[in-house]
Amino acid sequence: MLTGQQYLESLRDGRKMYVNGHAVPDVTQEPLLRGSALWAAAGYDRYYDQAPDACGPYFFIPTSVDDLRGQQYRQMHWDFPTISTSNGLLMVLTAASRMRAQYPVYAQRALAYFEESKRRDIRAVITITDAKGNRSLPPLKQDDPDLFVHIADRQPDGIVIRGAKLHISSAAIAHDLIVMPTKAMKRGEEDYAVACAVPVNAPGVSVVNAVFSARPDFDAGFYPYSSRYPMSEGLVVFDDVFVPSDRVFLAGEVEHSATFAHSLGLWERLGSVGHYAELGDTLVGFAQLIAEANGLAKVPHIKDKIAGLITYATLIRAGLEAAIEHANFTPEGWASPDELYTNAAKFYAAEQFSAMVRDLHDIAGGSVLTAPSSRDLRNPQTAAFLEKYLRTMEGVDAAYRMRLFHAIRDYTADAYGGWQHVTMIQAGGGLYAQKVVVAKHYDMERAKRLALEVAGLNPDKTSKL
Amino acid sequence: MLTGQQYLESLRDGRKMYVNGHAVPDVTQEPLLRGSALWAAAGYDRYYDQAPDACGPYFFIPTSVDDLRGQQYRQMHWDFPTISTSNGLLMVLTAASRMRAQYPVYAQRALAYFEESKRRDIRAVITITDAKGNRSLPPLKQDDPDLFVHIADRQPDGIVIRGAKLHISSAAIAHDLIVMPTKAMKRGEEDYAVACAVPVNAPGVSVVNAVFSARPDFDAGFYPYSSRYPMSEGLVVFDDVFVPSDRVFLAGEVEHSATFAHSLGLWERLGSVGHYAELGDTLVGFAQLIAEANGLAKVPHIKDKIAGLITYATLIRAGLEAAIEHANFTPEGWASPDELYTNAAKFYAAEQFSAMVRDLHDIAGGSVLTAPSSRDLRNPQTAAFLEKYLRTMEGVDAAYRMRLFHAIRDYTADAYGGWQHVTMIQAGGGLYAQKVVVAKHYDMERAKRLALEVAGLNPDKTSKL
Amino acid sequence: MLTGQQYLESLRDGRKMYVNGHAVPDVTQEPLLRGSALWAAAGYDRYYDQAPDACGPYFFIPTSVDDLRGQQYRQMHWDFPTISTSNGLLMVLTAASRMRAQYPVYAQRALAYFEESKRRDIRAVITITDAKGNRSLPPLKQDDPDLFVHIADRQPDGIVIRGAKLHISSAAIAHDLIVMPTKAMKRGEEDYAVACAVPVNAPGVSVVNAVFSARPDFDAGFYPYSSRYPMSEGLVVFDDVFVPSDRVFLAGEVEHSATFAHSLGLWERLGSVGHYAELGDTLVGFAQLIAEANGLAKVPHIKDKIAGLITYATLIRAGLEAAIEHANFTPEGWASPDELYTNAAKFYAAEQFSAMVRDLHDIAGGSVLTAPSSRDLRNPQTAAFLEKYLRTMEGVDAAYRMRLFHAIRDYTADAYGGWQHVTMIQAGGGLYAQKVVVAKHYDMERAKRLALEVAGLNPDKTSKL
Amino acid sequence: MLTGQQYLESLRDGRKMYVNGHAVPDVTQEPLLRGSALWAAAGYDRYYDQAPDACGPYFFIPTSVDDLRGQQYRQMHWDFPTISTSNGLLMVLTAASRMRAQYPVYAQRALAYFEESKRRDIRAVITITDAKGNRSLPPLKQDDPDLFVHIADRQPDGIVIRGAKLHISSAAIAHDLIVMPTKAMKRGEEDYAVACAVPVNAPGVSVVNAVFSARPDFDAGFYPYSSRYPMSEGLVVFDDVFVPSDRVFLAGEVEHSATFAHSLGLWERLGSVGHYAELGDTLVGFAQLIAEANGLAKVPHIKDKIAGLITYATLIRAGLEAAIEHANFTPEGWASPDELYTNAAKFYAAEQFSAMVRDLHDIAGGSVLTAPSSRDLRNPQTAAFLEKYLRTMEGVDAAYRMRLFHAIRDYTADAYGGWQHVTMIQAGGGLYAQKVVVAKHYDMERAKRLALEVAGLNPDKTSKL
Repeated sequence: MLTGQQYLESLRDGRKMYVNGHAVPDVTQEPLLRGSALWAAAGYDRYYDQAPDACGPYFFIPTSVDDLRGQQYRQMHWDFPTISTSNGLLMVLTAASRMRAQYPVYAQRALAYFEESKRRDIRAVITITDAKGNRSLPPLKQDDPDLFVHIADRQPDGIVIRGAKLHISSAAIAHDLIVMPTKAMKRGEEDYAVACAVPVNAPGVSVVNAVFSARPDFDAGFYPYSSRYPMSEGLVVFDDVFVPSDRVFLAGEVEHSATFAHSLGLWERLGSVGHYAELGDTLVGFAQLIAEANGLAKVPHIKDKIAGLITYATLIRAGLEAAIEHANFTPEGWASPDELYTNAAKFYAAEQFSAMVRDLHDIAGGSVLTAPSSRDLRNPQTAAFLEKYLRTMEGVDAAYRMRLFHAIRDYTADAYGGWQHVTMIQAGGGLYAQKVVVAKHYDMERAKRLALEVAGLNPDKTSKL
Repeated sequence: MLTGQQYLESLRDGRKMYVNGHAVPDVTQEPLLRGSALWAAAGYDRYYDQAPDACGPYFFIPTSVDDLRGQQYRQMHWDFPTISTSNGLLMVLTAASRMRAQYPVYAQRALAYFEESKRRDIRAVITITDAKGNRSLPPLKQDDPDLFVHIADRQPDGIVIRGAKLHISSAAIAHDLIVMPTKAMKRGEEDYAVACAVPVNAPGVSVVNAVFSARPDFDAGFYPYSSRYPMSEGLVVFDDVFVPSDRVFLAGEVEHSATFAHSLGLWERLGSVGHYAELGDTLVGFAQLIAEANGLAKVPHIKDKIAGLITYATLIRAGLEAAIEHANFTPEGWASPDELYTNAAKFYAAEQFSAMVRDLHDIAGGSVLTAPSSRDLRNPQTAAFLEKYLRTMEGVDAAYRMRLFHAIRDYTADAYGGWQHVTMIQAGGGLYAQKVVVAKHYDMERAKRLALEVAGLNPDKTSKL
Repeated sequence: MLTGQQYLESLRDGRKMYVNGHAVPDVTQEPLLRGSALWAAAGYDRYYDQAPDACGPYFFIPTSVDDLRGQQYRQMHWDFPTISTSNGLLMVLTAASRMRAQYPVYAQRALAYFEESKRRDIRAVITITDAKGNRSLPPLKQDDPDLFVHIADRQPDGIVIRGAKLHISSAAIAHDLIVMPTKAMKRGEEDYAVACAVPVNAPGVSVVNAVFSARPDFDAGFYPYSSRYPMSEGLVVFDDVFVPSDRVFLAGEVEHSATFAHSLGLWERLGSVGHYAELGDTLVGFAQLIAEANGLAKVPHIKDKIAGLITYATLIRAGLEAAIEHANFTPEGWASPDELYTNAAKFYAAEQFSAMVRDLHDIAGGSVLTAPSSRDLRNPQTAAFLEKYLRTMEGVDAAYRMRLFHAIRDYTADAYGGWQHVTMIQAGGGLYAQKVVVAKHYDMERAKRLALEVAGLNPDKTSKL
Repeated sequence: MLTGQQYLESLRDGRKMYVNGHAVPDVTQEPLLRGSALWAAAGYDRYYDQAPDACGPYFFIPTSVDDLRGQQYRQMHWDFPTISTSNGLLMVLTAASRMRAQYPVYAQRALAYFEESKRRDIRAVITITDAKGNRSLPPLKQDDPDLFVHIADRQPDGIVIRGAKLHISSAAIAHDLIVMPTKAMKRGEEDYAVACAVPVNAPGVSVVNAVFSARPDFDAGFYPYSSRYPMSEGLVVFDDVFVPSDRVFLAGEVEHSATFAHSLGLWERLGSVGHYAELGDTLVGFAQLIAEANGLAKVPHIKDKIAGLITYATLIRAGLEAAIEHANFTPEGWASPDELYTNAAKFYAAEQFSAMVRDLHDIAGGSVLTAPSSRDLRNPQTAAFLEKYLRTMEGVDAAYRMRLFHAIRDYTADAYGGWQHVTMIQAGGGLYAQKVVVAKHYDMERAKRLALEVAGLNPDKTSKL
């Protein structure tokens, strides 16, 4: 296993990294990215064990309902690249299981990749969304064939890929990129049916980053969450990148082009549901704390809105629990969550999130925005004014209350808050896509029988359309 | 055990029953009530076993998660008074368990009542809601002391109760009324803290019924659901009714006045959640069937709305599953569902139901209303017209499609549909009351800790308010 | 003009009418239809003027904003066939104005029809929705060519039409049917581009009715609204009906096949918006009355829900007012409402209606359903019980409160209530269709300029797509 | 009138200003505030007229419906302090009109203040929200009497005020602060019933600012909106500030303590409704532009969501138009908007805003967040990659599309977007407060009559409760 320090050193590997218009020679020194790296490093230190055969608990294949639950609850406390690594490798294994009968070599490579990742204690992030160009056209109808990642060349010992992947969270601070098709490919699109693992520092890989971090001209106290847990999103370019055969998991077998996306959906959305359950509880906590700090905790409409937030958080958690309880098992004995519950809860969490944040803002009041910075509380010219006017009662001083306002703003109504709003909707493919998945996994025949029984029609004799 | 026929005979017991302005000498002969009785009789026949020690599966105390799940899923197929009996007796037992330490005699009577009910194979319905008068005033501030049921007299061998209970589903066709306080009573309101079991035909009991059944001037085919499963709701008057001591479960102990309501909430709402999960699936089935019959099943906005219905049904079921999985156990080893999940799912089901029905109506089209009656399809003057113009394609004839429209109307947009709309909201006490219960069972301390961690504040050092 | 009595006599004209499986020799004597006829007759008496050149105010062409407002507000107090007549004739005139340049003969016939209808004081209802068969196929791809109304024969002095029209409110009690295409027809579908006026008693016309009226086995007090204002919906069959040329307004000119539907949309939806504004206010009134009668008018969550109902009603009325204020004028000087405001308000009213009814039910409580019938209040065996237990306080007796419950049930949670739920959604073509119309009438170019200005892009230089 | 340059000079007036922990000697030089000042200066230059008696169109008293409409539509194009000045002075005049009969001296001072402000061409912002302390307690029950602004001393020629006002938009760049009570005060709270005008640079005034502006380490193109229109919110401390009598508009007359808040509500909310109508249209524009740029403009669910956005924007505008059309007039002949329509539209806009932004995010996709900065498009190491992979089709290049993403992020999902989310809810006092105002201005008696008519009850005979 690696220590946090060893991890930070491993990021100085010649990777081509860019942010805000300049190249980044060392991500651990770049102000806009360093915070993310330190977060991940702390994750390494937390689990470090010097025993030679030790490995992180994120390299784990659940084989029972309890395993699955344990893994999901542990995940809630990990940094982003560690979560992505865990889900990405489970996705690779699930896909391998589904391809094993037809393409055993891919299954072997996938399992070997899992073992090697575990041994090296690396962080691997998933890359799925292509540039896509005109979204109304398939890959080969685009006016630039590279708008979807594809095999540009096939060589005896590997393939060469070209294209770009968007929205790659933590690409800047990961070791490997797990590449997979963004959608099902059809006959004729064989070169676009490609899955593989690529080191971030592989020749031909470039990453242009967007970041969600605290402003440098304010102090960390004004961004109590995002100053500790900054996010980066990479646009990853594969400019003719060679991938050796043992890292290739799909190379033209279009019938399995969607296998990876489906497998990913399984794991990424379950992880999201777990995260959203916690996030929902966190919104409840903020609403209650600020209502108490404002002296409004017993006002009926405030209590009513908090109860609404509780219902939201609880229904998401019910979806998580039901998805875990109804786990499926592969022939290998690996557990995976029920897709219907997972996706219904994911959709609900995403669809209702903005209304929940609205209610939190409604409860908290305008000081979410207008609470001055923590530095003003330390400036002797203004400290006394803030202490006098931003406290509310015995036990609620200005420093505590301002921190609550700053946290709510940072978490829901500033740069990080915006990131959270958009990713809530877009992670897992937009609300419409999520509904499509829900419908796919539903037992429609049973529902029709129930309706036919209400109608007094014989379900067994009614013509099926 | 009783056969259906024996059950029907048992209803001819001198009960004072009224409906639509007239007395009902025999409920099994009254057109407005007979249907309900026949439905319940069929429930008897279904489980009848002549073995001397046989008993119905509805007299069942779950002692494990699997027990609890089995019971809930079985319940989905029972008639209303049987469900009410099962939940009512579990309520009595749960309350008994909670009172056992302080009032062992009540616990003994409750268990004895359970055993006797099982032996006699009776149906017992729950009566909770009082007349209440001016809802802004407590019982003793009302200008009529009888607006809440209370003990009018205490005698050596029992008590005399007076008042009325509203909204008593199936009172007309049950054997016993389980009386309980509608809310927590305070010191000084001891006479209102009363729980007991009273035979429907006890002297002093009168029931004025409202019914939800098919119109007599149309044929049953126009009401495919409500003609088979009619509901009655009784206003039950207790006009100085004597209750012997062994049927009294509470008589003045105000600290336990809410114990029954809380215990009832547990079981009634879980039953509701199970029912609503099935109801949600039924709405999905109707939406899909009618979309197919209309040739619209592949239209994007139709599919989108059906996916919304699926999400609704699935989240309710997730709540059911999570409530069962997280069951609690009494000292006696009896299982009961988790209250937070139960109530969150109940609230969600109720709040969203009207929007779901709206979407079903939107999908189905105006023929939900305007499809002529099934008799018109048999009238030779009109049959050919209807057959020609209400079919849509090969495999979808007028009779089938009209029946779907009739069923959707009957179930969601006619007298029974109205009953369903209102009970969905009111069962369990109105949306606001349901939110209050959700908030009560939530782990708020944990939520506050999550928020404090986001804010970078030490949860252990922050002053609690 | 006709008196109510003359109107009733005019309905004995040999029309072929069916309901609930039997023929109706005289609609004024048929229990299921008579109520509707009496409602319309009262409308005649209300405006009757024996002056020879008198005419009803519903035969009115607004030529100013004030005219338009006056007409809309008057309409709120008319019976259904009178509203339909007014809107139907304005639709015909609007369509005539749009066709005048190209087809002056149709414009002349339309105006003549308006004048003749006024002179004869008839009621004419709009018939638009075809049987449609498989909704995914156009008329000529159906396996029965009659599933859309079409010209079956062209003769020297007129045309012969065949097909059926569905959901024709008040067809049973009107004089004329105004036939129009349900959608735009394309080249090749000329026979389906047909508009005309047909007497209800024309040879070949048959009407099969569905009705929404009080149950015959309960008294009128149990149905305080629908017993006075019953609705009927006709399935109208045109079995080779000859239409003389002067009543034909379109016969093959496909480029104008949608002109009628668009013109109808204008007037029908504006009328709907006015009706829904009143309906919204009525829901507010019920909520406030029942909250007061229950003693709950000052409870915060009740007030909050009532304020929500007020907002709903007020926004609909704002849409009505804005649509009228922004009226357009034809070359003839005829005023017509703004389509964008009309349709946005219509959509909003329809989409939110079910949630508003839910909130009313939540406020009112379960007695909406369970209040016994008014006959029970007159039955000496039960009267005293109901008087005692269904009153709430000084000034709120059982009779008044029961009537409120009956009215809410009748209006929102029984057969008529179901009719209202479904027509709210379906009138004007389903929620999706309404959104399409909204988008069509919106000034998208202006909206794009606003967004480009926010983006700091020059709206005049940005490439249009 | 002042030029922009003269305005900027006027801000160097010794005002005590603080931001982010430091004092601000000159707001026109402070990076965090300078942008706001320049925006306001541009507003001056736009209307500058050197004629000696010229005055800005924002000093305008509407006296007709057309005046009122004109003023509202002009306002949509002004900078924030100019809008605040216009609404603040109209608020003062409206309050004066309401107090004239009882307190003519206040009316005279108010009119004089309006005239003087016009002559000096100043910017005056409204200060209403007090610090409030424990919100469940009135001013005199707080443990610090200064938590609401109050008269600390009465002197022969004026008063001395003490306390703080929160959420004062543009305080840093205005000349005057119009002080008014945050709520109705009661007998005994006379010292808290105070309204007056105070120069920002008056001795004893200090302002601690929070700002919503572009990050200094990114270029303006990454913040296309907020870099041009930055907002500041001031916490304004009145530390024993002397106010001469001629600037005092209320000093103890508790019966008029709420007159100012009500008058402000009138003008501020109407201005909000106008702004939200434009904002709604802007969201539509973004949705359409980005859907077109992504090639998705014809996808059904995208069109459906855009139609939803259109309905939102149109209903708000309907409320604006209806509020203007139904204007009221003071005895002086001054026009003011209808309060019911204004508040209903304001509430609707606020309540639905978060769902509308969610739909925009859903339509736009994840690049709202992940589009790299505009500098990366100019960095030769990355420019070619971005140009290749972020374009979509002929006519949609990377620069244009990235700018759209940046604008959507800046406007809805970053610091300014967060400001917009929260102010949408909080301006006008939180959703609950807005509902209270809606209910207050509604004609409930008319609504009750409508309901009684449906119930068949005589509205004139029914006992009023």
